[in-house]
Amino acid sequence: MHFTFLFVDKTRSPIWQATEAEYLERLSRFVKYSIKIIPPVKNKTAAECIIQESKNLLADKSARDCFLVALDKSGHSLSSEGLSEKLSLLQNNHSEIAFIIGGAFGLSGGLLEKADFVWSLSPLTFTHEMARTIIFEQLYRAFTINKNLPYHY
Amino acid sequence: MHFTFLFVDKTRSPIWQATEAEYLERLSRFVKYSIKIIPPVKNKTAAECIIQESKNLLADKSARDCFLVALDKSGHSLSSEGLSEKLSLLQNNHSEIAFIIGGAFGLSGGLLEKADFVWSLSPLTFTHEMARTIIFEQLYRAFTINKNLPYHY
Repeated sequence: MHFTFLFVDKTRSPIWQATEAEYLERLSRFVKYSIKIIPPVKNKTAAECIIQESKNLLADKSARDCFLVALDKSGHSLSSEGLSEKLSLLQNNHSEIAFIIGGAFGLSGGLLEKADFVWSLSPLTFTHEMARTIIFEQLYRAFTINKNLPYHY
Repeated sequence: MHFTFLFVDKTRSPIWQATEAEYLERLSRFVKYSIKIIPPVKNKTAAECIIQESKNLLADKSARDCFLVALDKSGHSLSSEGLSEKLSLLQNNHSEIAFIIGGAFGLSGGLLEKADFVWSLSPLTFTHEMARTIIFEQLYRAFTINKNLPYHY
């Protein structure tokens, strides 16, 4: 299995860069991954940013070829055990999974319709930078659950 | 309004210390707070840790005198807007709110029964150190929503 993380803009906050680095290092013990950054759209309204950034994300090759998971509050919520089971099932039929997190304003309805699975981390709103660390940590956690390994705090 | 954060053990991971510092600094613009750390119980089973740590948390003065919010996956979920509304309502009747996050193994059923509100951040399992940063960030966010201020990323 290979993961592609399709994000809008690089992570700019040093504190969230540090948490990402920690959980990406942990995740790399279980799965190969790549991160693709789409530039943010600037000097436009929020609605225009959402539409253009979502188009740019969908135009990426991995959005077409992979099983596509889009992160959005409107999506399905999962427990950590549920995520672990879902990944195990996906592994049987898909060699590539792409995870899309939008920019500061989120993703378009059109993108969410094209996604194979829309995943909601929480009813709470997180910044896109926090959401990145949370999915890296949860994917790492899912592998430890799946392999029955202790979780290191 | 004054917040007390009642936690088991200090935050040990430098990456989560850094995120806490950032959001506590932001939160301090809106509310006075104190953090009380209960020592973790050592060399016991998980069940024994949960029971003893929960007893020690409840023995703290702020657990008796404040409106008590306990963080647990079994609790009520809130949107960020819902949290903002809840805080506004609480502010009318309570001058002190205590937020309790358990240690690595969580909180006892007895403590959850004594809490005035049990709050679930997400169906996902987070470490207690992540949960601390998330509540600081969400409380800061709740104040920005309530005061109609822009959220700074």
